Amino acid sequence: MHTRNLKYQVSGVNVAAVSDVIEEAAQKIAQELEIPIAEKDYRTLLENKNIEAVVICSSTDTHAQIISEAAEAGKHIFCEKPIALDIDKIDQAITAVKKAGVKLQVGFNRRFDPSFKKAKDLVAKGTIGTPHLVRITSRDHEPPPISYVKVSGGIFLDMMIHDFDMARFLLGQEVVELMAVGSCLVDPAIGEAGDIDTAIVTLKYENGAWGTIDNSRKAVYGYDQRIEIFGSEGCVIVGNPKPTEVIVNSAKDTISDKPLYFFIERYQEAYLAEMKEFINCIREDKEPSVSGMDGKIAVQIGYVAKESLNKGFFMNINYLE
Amino acid sequence: MHTRNLKYQVSGVNVAAVSDVIEEAAQKIAQELEIPIAEKDYRTLLENKNIEAVVICSSTDTHAQIISEAAEAGKHIFCEKPIALDIDKIDQAITAVKKAGVKLQVGFNRRFDPSFKKAKDLVAKGTIGTPHLVRITSRDHEPPPISYVKVSGGIFLDMMIHDFDMARFLLGQEVVELMAVGSCLVDPAIGEAGDIDTAIVTLKYENGAWGTIDNSRKAVYGYDQRIEIFGSEGCVIVGNPKPTEVIVNSAKDTISDKPLYFFIERYQEAYLAEMKEFINCIREDKEPSVSGMDGKIAVQIGYVAKESLNKGFFMNINYLE
Amino acid sequence: MHTRNLKYQVSGVNVAAVSDVIEEAAQKIAQELEIPIAEKDYRTLLENKNIEAVVICSSTDTHAQIISEAAEAGKHIFCEKPIALDIDKIDQAITAVKKAGVKLQVGFNRRFDPSFKKAKDLVAKGTIGTPHLVRITSRDHEPPPISYVKVSGGIFLDMMIHDFDMARFLLGQEVVELMAVGSCLVDPAIGEAGDIDTAIVTLKYENGAWGTIDNSRKAVYGYDQRIEIFGSEGCVIVGNPKPTEVIVNSAKDTISDKPLYFFIERYQEAYLAEMKEFINCIREDKEPSVSGMDGKIAVQIGYVAKESLNKGFFMNINYLE
Amino acid sequence: MHTRNLKYQVSGVNVAAVSDVIEEAAQKIAQELEIPIAEKDYRTLLENKNIEAVVICSSTDTHAQIISEAAEAGKHIFCEKPIALDIDKIDQAITAVKKAGVKLQVGFNRRFDPSFKKAKDLVAKGTIGTPHLVRITSRDHEPPPISYVKVSGGIFLDMMIHDFDMARFLLGQEVVELMAVGSCLVDPAIGEAGDIDTAIVTLKYENGAWGTIDNSRKAVYGYDQRIEIFGSEGCVIVGNPKPTEVIVNSAKDTISDKPLYFFIERYQEAYLAEMKEFINCIREDKEPSVSGMDGKIAVQIGYVAKESLNKGFFMNINYLE
Repeated sequence: MHTRNLKYQVSGVNVAAVSDVIEEAAQKIAQELEIPIAEKDYRTLLENKNIEAVVICSSTDTHAQIISEAAEAGKHIFCEKPIALDIDKIDQAITAVKKAGVKLQVGFNRRFDPSFKKAKDLVAKGTIGTPHLVRITSRDHEPPPISYVKVSGGIFLDMMIHDFDMARFLLGQEVVELMAVGSCLVDPAIGEAGDIDTAIVTLKYENGAWGTIDNSRKAVYGYDQRIEIFGSEGCVIVGNPKPTEVIVNSAKDTISDKPLYFFIERYQEAYLAEMKEFINCIREDKEPSVSGMDGKIAVQIGYVAKESLNKGFFMNINYLE
Repeated sequence: MHTRNLKYQVSGVNVAAVSDVIEEAAQKIAQELEIPIAEKDYRTLLENKNIEAVVICSSTDTHAQIISEAAEAGKHIFCEKPIALDIDKIDQAITAVKKAGVKLQVGFNRRFDPSFKKAKDLVAKGTIGTPHLVRITSRDHEPPPISYVKVSGGIFLDMMIHDFDMARFLLGQEVVELMAVGSCLVDPAIGEAGDIDTAIVTLKYENGAWGTIDNSRKAVYGYDQRIEIFGSEGCVIVGNPKPTEVIVNSAKDTISDKPLYFFIERYQEAYLAEMKEFINCIREDKEPSVSGMDGKIAVQIGYVAKESLNKGFFMNINYLE
Repeated sequence: MHTRNLKYQVSGVNVAAVSDVIEEAAQKIAQELEIPIAEKDYRTLLENKNIEAVVICSSTDTHAQIISEAAEAGKHIFCEKPIALDIDKIDQAITAVKKAGVKLQVGFNRRFDPSFKKAKDLVAKGTIGTPHLVRITSRDHEPPPISYVKVSGGIFLDMMIHDFDMARFLLGQEVVELMAVGSCLVDPAIGEAGDIDTAIVTLKYENGAWGTIDNSRKAVYGYDQRIEIFGSEGCVIVGNPKPTEVIVNSAKDTISDKPLYFFIERYQEAYLAEMKEFINCIREDKEPSVSGMDGKIAVQIGYVAKESLNKGFFMNINYLE
Repeated sequence: MHTRNLKYQVSGVNVAAVSDVIEEAAQKIAQELEIPIAEKDYRTLLENKNIEAVVICSSTDTHAQIISEAAEAGKHIFCEKPIALDIDKIDQAITAVKKAGVKLQVGFNRRFDPSFKKAKDLVAKGTIGTPHLVRITSRDHEPPPISYVKVSGGIFLDMMIHDFDMARFLLGQEVVELMAVGSCLVDPAIGEAGDIDTAIVTLKYENGAWGTIDNSRKAVYGYDQRIEIFGSEGCVIVGNPKPTEVIVNSAKDTISDKPLYFFIERYQEAYLAEMKEFINCIREDKEPSVSGMDGKIAVQIGYVAKESLNKGFFMNINYLE
């Protein structure tokens, strides 16, 4: 999707090469999108002097290493979240980026969703006064395969990480304390894999506002992503978009569409917008609005949530650790 | 309001007498509604053999005593919430009622709101499968006077008590654990009075579901009372009613009404419905759906919330204390 | 309903007497609402010097006669619509009222609906600039009995008469031309009774705006009453209220309530508000906002619509005939 | 837009050439989208044996001629609406297409809008029973330039033509009678150019249902395209999509977005879907769902509306002329 967006919808970009550990996959996409180079080894791309920037969508455990190498090769970098599940590796990647003086943007795509972005902008403009409460609901349509659950890092690092970032993004404030609860209500197999599928985190912001996030791995009615920011002068609420505007009045009830089903549909515009920002930041030499530190902090919060769940009490978040 | 509802809108009821410590208030309402007896001392009413039932709307600290006396006098009793702020006094009142064999209904009016009642019925019917998450938002339009805040028992016993009852009502399950957080964000005077004005409670139900309640003493846009119950087969959401159905499309935006402003407007139908249920239970010799135990448990939960706020961790709720 | 509203919800009114051609009906309501006098013959009431005002809810063919007699007896008059199906009789009633100098208010209750009233007020305030288009939808839940259809005067005089009044009310302008079409689509028995059950009227206002009204005798989903006023600076839209604010997200679709079912529920507040206005006009010696002329003009428009339907072309409305 | 969609979003299509009377325009788009051939004269493309199909987006007065030539050259044809403003020319184009045995699809893009398509499908499935009433609202955000108004053929052939097609599409029935009214309320310059800017058409379907269409050249709040189909078993309503799902509750009112502003945004998905259908029909040798006859009938209805406006009465539509 990123390749397609860059090739067709971001003007002035020349997609020079693709790389995939499964060489056939790289060749297939290169052929389909008329991209001249398709390689198995990403290092070939890093050595290519004509390439200015890279977009990293490989598996999570390879992100940090590729970021470091790409930074050393002087490429600007867009990397899917999370940078790594290991804070040390994240730090190494961020250090490499800083040393090389290249741009790094992390793929928190939801920040680019037009509704969430508008909500954030309204809060920043003071439309609702001082924020007091933030509520984030995030429910997937279907749980991932159990094989994925096992290596995902758990619900806080795999799923709620998006909501931790959203919580920070909406108020432009750090989260300083949190309390996590949750259990396995959707599928016992998730519990057997050592994870939970239903969770609530209560959090406190540095300026005193409170937040609550709820996650479920399975909402039968589709992909459910809503937020609410309540403040001294009002409340901003973001609901779910629907595929059509059709309403049916029947003898029984009034019926409208379910929310959109998959995150690809829901965040289509957001995925394109984050690529446009990345390209724009390179062109105009600006810092991307989603930095490596944003990527790190969301992971840190995830680890504190995990610990809070185990200990059963409120935890401070130490951003220096 | 109860007197007016009973006199005019509940068929078959004969409002025989009113009593108020401010005698003029009793006389005024008696005159206006053509009620033959108006007394300063409620005991005169309890001695009146023609009176079958009483509705207690006096100040909270008198509830338990009047319930006990009314029960001894053989009257059926409707009493506004809370029965008392002291669990022992609640127990004495409940014991007196049980001994006398009279009916006691507690004024958790929100249970009779058509929207909340429909939500509960849908959950009970299994429409959303097994409940996993409950979300309750309850925000007042304006904080009460500071003089009231000081004697109110605090936000958990004065305001969130309604939500604790709602939480139990919606699932028909007991709350077994909770964690409370909160602070004073609306008005420092509330903090000086020893209370908070913004609070979040996370709770666990006996069958494993989770809930979250948020309260604020001040929502500039009106009286905000919403709920959501999410389960294995779907989600029930209840929004705020609005005074009109008018929408304006302007060159700037799309505008609709604010929610209704005061709880009297919002729960008008609910106040009438609870009176009808009370009268109906007497007539058909049935137990009221909101019992003395319901009144007691909501207060117990309130005390645990207060303690959790102070201690900063999850608390079990011991219903035997 | 009017009696009950006057007795219980309009302060300062003393309901002195009721009258009904079916004497038992009068006695029953008098007993239930503690009204001292119940008569078979309304003339007894007109002779009663203590009675200041009357509310006429008898069958349509008796309205004009009773208005004239009540006016001569010096009573202020509220009369249900229509005053009569015969323009001459309406004129006689209006003349009698004028001669006697009493108040006459006609029962176009929808003008008092909070949503429609707000829409009208917004238009009057200039919120949508100069009005260009008015759209009125009015669909009953069930057709009336065929026996009623036969004597009703037809869909334009019985049902759309409310919409003709609404059309005038919303813009505060006269309708000067119209074109009616329609046919029998709901129930052939209505056609056999000489009426139609589905109709559209296109109309022109004196200031050049256009309007369209659609009526159906049967909407399976409830009572459907919506309006829209579109102008140079925006659009005001009024939808149907619903009994609850409950939404269900299910695996199949999103479900909400049907509109309210019966006009009594929908216009409950409006019925009370029109009584309050009537009493208030008497007390403050003001002209009621819904006059005898309003009652007459709606009937006149109804006759022109009937003629247009038969002739198949646009008709001028001559308010002098 | 069509070129971009075909190049990037319809798989298996090879965009071989573009042509534009302004040669630089053709060259610019060819360069941007990497299309090998850019010509001033479309005939060069028709002579190119490698080209199987053409998409005609030239000015209306050239459509019919190009269709005929393209058909003779054996190319499948997609043509923007209207085919021509002259019925004879439309007939000639249709005859040429039929003789050549090629496909012709006319650009009534709104049929491919997901909401309108779903509404039509629900009606076809019988969800609302027998249709009784159709209501179509179609209001542009801004009137076109006066220079365009002068050559546009007038509001019925330029703007309401889409709604005539929509009216036929929604029920799958022909319109057999209509009555048009309207005037110049938005801008007197439109009246001076011999056109109107506000219009209402009432129409009758072959099976007895009724319809009403309202058009305005200027809605300050955006592009307003709504429909409603009411039948014996229910009602289907389609509202306007909005750019975001953000709602703001403020101390003054509740605010949400305006509808989308321009038809390009509103019908983005529809434009792509009609291209996909066109390509699919060629590939699977199926007749396009929007035929040359559909293009002709909408123009015929437009002429009858023009005549009805002038004459002031109901007109039959003779599809044989």
